[in-house]
Amino acid sequence: MDAAAKKHALRLVPYGLYLAGSRHADGHTSVSLVSWFTQTSFDPPLVVLGMHKEGEAYKGVQETGVLALSLLGAGQKDLVKPFFKHVAVADGKAGPLTAKMGAATGCPLLTDLPASVELKVRQVLELGDHATVVLEVVDAHVHHKDMKALDHASAGLHYAG
Amino acid sequence: MDAAAKKHALRLVPYGLYLAGSRHADGHTSVSLVSWFTQTSFDPPLVVLGMHKEGEAYKGVQETGVLALSLLGAGQKDLVKPFFKHVAVADGKAGPLTAKMGAATGCPLLTDLPASVELKVRQVLELGDHATVVLEVVDAHVHHKDMKALDHASAGLHYAG
Repeated sequence: MDAAAKKHALRLVPYGLYLAGSRHADGHTSVSLVSWFTQTSFDPPLVVLGMHKEGEAYKGVQETGVLALSLLGAGQKDLVKPFFKHVAVADGKAGPLTAKMGAATGCPLLTDLPASVELKVRQVLELGDHATVVLEVVDAHVHHKDMKALDHASAGLHYAG
Repeated sequence: MDAAAKKHALRLVPYGLYLAGSRHADGHTSVSLVSWFTQTSFDPPLVVLGMHKEGEAYKGVQETGVLALSLLGAGQKDLVKPFFKHVAVADGKAGPLTAKMGAATGCPLLTDLPASVELKVRQVLELGDHATVVLEVVDAHVHHKDMKALDHASAGLHYAG
């Protein structure tokens, strides 16, 4: 294995950035950053996330089987760092952002971001240092129709390799 | 479910584009387009693909358990359409491109593209209209170090929603 070539190749891949809203067994909700995402089916609409096993979002997935993802917008790179560690939702806010609970999942949606999807877990695989989680999109919400998505390169982030 | 919101949200997601090189039970090799990709682990290095169940690349995965992906470069959008359907490799070429067999997998690598990864299948899930395939990166090759990756938006493609 050429480790340097692996890093180079895998860091070429374009990725978006997402704020994951998780709901937990004790009723609290949190928001944290996730970046490994792809769709894997149109019907039913399925997506896959690579989730850090020690992360708050993955704990929520294991505890309640639901999650919401809000896509960060092209101009929102300053929102990346504050959510490297999770931020608890309190009084309708997650740090500087407005958080509204999604009707389908009870998970926090960030309405300052372009759009959100609400998700239910379909399958979890623990094959590596992150879990591979397959989820079904059960509802979606557009908050700001004209906003484009942020990507890793624009955010100065390289979480891959 | 708000279907229009789902389409809007899922089409905001940045994606790259890949030429999948597959090897088949009868020994032939082929090249076809794939676009749903994410990494899901650093150690071991795992990636996930959403693969059309009727596609040539998925047939190869089922038949031989190996695959190669070459990332399309930023200036290579004219290479997308010719590989919507698969192209058989013959005399070291896949259509207009040079194809070289990877030592780790025997799958075709497109050396005119920026980089390739060679992959071994770890798990296959058939939960929707595309299969969710988890693969381990077993080798990687950089062909053109300064080339960036093509994305859906630059290619005028919207395969999501």
